Amino acid sequence: MMFQSSASLLTVDTPCLVLHGGKMDRNIKRLRTHLGADGPALRPHLKTAKSVPVASRVMGGVMGPATVSTLKEAEQFAAAGIRDMIYAVGIAPGKLDRVVALRASGIDLAVILDTPEQALLVVDASQRAGIAIPALIEIDSDGHRAGVAPADTNTLLAIARLLCDGGAELRGVLTHAGGSYQARSPKDLPAWAERERAAAVSCAATLRAAGLPCPVVSVGSTPTALFGRDFSGVTEVRAGVFVFFDLVMAGIGVCQVDDIALSVLATVIGHQPARGWVLVDAGWMALSRDRGTAGQDIDQGYGLVCDIHGRPCDDLIIVGANQEHAMIGARDGGFNPLLDLPIGTRVRILPNHACATAAQHDHYQVVEEGSLNVVAKWPRFGGW
Amino acid sequence: MMFQSSASLLTVDTPCLVLHGGKMDRNIKRLRTHLGADGPALRPHLKTAKSVPVASRVMGGVMGPATVSTLKEAEQFAAAGIRDMIYAVGIAPGKLDRVVALRASGIDLAVILDTPEQALLVVDASQRAGIAIPALIEIDSDGHRAGVAPADTNTLLAIARLLCDGGAELRGVLTHAGGSYQARSPKDLPAWAERERAAAVSCAATLRAAGLPCPVVSVGSTPTALFGRDFSGVTEVRAGVFVFFDLVMAGIGVCQVDDIALSVLATVIGHQPARGWVLVDAGWMALSRDRGTAGQDIDQGYGLVCDIHGRPCDDLIIVGANQEHAMIGARDGGFNPLLDLPIGTRVRILPNHACATAAQHDHYQVVEEGSLNVVAKWPRFGGW
Repeated sequence: MMFQSSASLLTVDTPCLVLHGGKMDRNIKRLRTHLGADGPALRPHLKTAKSVPVASRVMGGVMGPATVSTLKEAEQFAAAGIRDMIYAVGIAPGKLDRVVALRASGIDLAVILDTPEQALLVVDASQRAGIAIPALIEIDSDGHRAGVAPADTNTLLAIARLLCDGGAELRGVLTHAGGSYQARSPKDLPAWAERERAAAVSCAATLRAAGLPCPVVSVGSTPTALFGRDFSGVTEVRAGVFVFFDLVMAGIGVCQVDDIALSVLATVIGHQPARGWVLVDAGWMALSRDRGTAGQDIDQGYGLVCDIHGRPCDDLIIVGANQEHAMIGARDGGFNPLLDLPIGTRVRILPNHACATAAQHDHYQVVEEGSLNVVAKWPRFGGW
Repeated sequence: MMFQSSASLLTVDTPCLVLHGGKMDRNIKRLRTHLGADGPALRPHLKTAKSVPVASRVMGGVMGPATVSTLKEAEQFAAAGIRDMIYAVGIAPGKLDRVVALRASGIDLAVILDTPEQALLVVDASQRAGIAIPALIEIDSDGHRAGVAPADTNTLLAIARLLCDGGAELRGVLTHAGGSYQARSPKDLPAWAERERAAAVSCAATLRAAGLPCPVVSVGSTPTALFGRDFSGVTEVRAGVFVFFDLVMAGIGVCQVDDIALSVLATVIGHQPARGWVLVDAGWMALSRDRGTAGQDIDQGYGLVCDIHGRPCDDLIIVGANQEHAMIGARDGGFNPLLDLPIGTRVRILPNHACATAAQHDHYQVVEEGSLNVVAKWPRFGGW
């Protein structure tokens, strides 16, 4: 995937998505070190990267296990050799044919669900296909989205029995502490992680006490994966954004701004000095509409502005964005000598939310520390 | 582009982007009728559609003129036969080689600019290529983004003279009343349109009074194009979102909700009755993160929920969205009997902002009134 090229951040077309390979590798190593060789397995969530070369780096050359958010990801990563995946969005009936086709091709793809209705659909699809589709029961550890409430053992056991009695496979339980994104400080994160762990482990114990299997106990989110102190009873940890990090993660204190491996390269195309604006050619089409830092202590607008080398100009943020225009302005709304950027100047913009910003692009321009040379161009995909 | 198919909204993979062809045609006809046969030319902005089949319908089979927001659009539409385009984002120096290549291939592509620095870059590129690159001077008619202030005749004339004296082509003036999106009522729109027209026409007069050419006087935005009463002195009108419309336009009163031709088809994948939520498989990846109605009188969340036939459930909106999940909830935060949607139910979600939502998809599933059959699948593209 590496290539000899004369491309550099001085010459590539803008806007484009820039990935700092060394920061990415450092971020990956940090989570692997935290989990430890004897700790739970890491099942990285590839929804952030959506890229085979990135996936390969995240998994250290071993092709799996992995987590995906769409069947398109499952199909693309299966074609690249990844054999063990969880499709971690509650299964819909219309998607089971594609799940069966992937399993028939030798991929160990598991689904998740949180209702008896879905269990019956998985049972029906298993019976029709003559294969036991593996399913994990989603647990709602923090009230932020989907899953069976940990205290609702009746529903948990009903779903589990439907799966087992009907000829599907009960693979285990899964939870995602997405609520940890609302934390205000890293000091709060160990408690979020413990709440996530306790919910999953207690549901696993409920299943086992009823004589039901629960080989997999799957937890994860980037904040809880990195700040969890005890993974007792957990068999695997899922996380995605830890690979790149972003301003939302920095705002919680999960990483430093300097750890953020992803940025959008943009070119200055105009000035409105009376309004304190510099206009660049990376609008929300390149940055996404994500305003994830709006509710944090430091609102980064649509992104934090850096020079072409990636050094933050701490007082300059993207104060507004249209489809193909964004406005750089001073954080305090005033004037800033750094705003005197000539037409053609190139800047890099750190994203609020790596998943959302990366999704606006179909490739990464990969660079390394201390150089503007593009050392690789890695494809990424979208769609369902 | 039409095809025989057994595909229907009951069976296509979700999430996906649905286009109601008849509503689109009605919307296109509305603007053409308003402008009139003897009125200014319509130069539709193809940034919303990014699709050759849609462009063909918008232009009534005639391949141009058109407006684009990226050089990728210019290249794609040029390959499809469109010969006359304005790239309506302030030109950056690194983009002039692609502009020259398109012009050398016979495409009449014009650029826009608002600084003397850019005029010198266009002059330099014209001289190096041996062709006169046409440029329009952008006018800031409403203070919302880019352009020369109408009163700043010194800058206007300086840019114009640099272009003419240096061997580029002064094609005219262009303005975009994007500020009209902040209107609270259609009653305010004729004044926005007149402000836009007056700014462009006065700058054209300034140029002509100085003996400089100004053949093109280009104005436009969907609200001002549809509510302008007088286009005297205007040679062409640009608009894009009028083709599809969206909830932001309905919120201003530019269209009715029933005119919105675009929706996202989604499947119910879960329930959280204690929170009043139904979960669907169209998260912000399918809907976009656009919250354009947040500042309007009626906040539509991440979109207004309709049944599979496109009939709005007026009290149900998307109250939250994650990457591949969205939560349907009652507008008032309470409970609603319509929320009793079984797993597998399909709904359609009207978008806040058609440009942003369409950008998340690579094709349109085209349907017609009174039928769930997919009559065509039209590709769309992204990137730069």
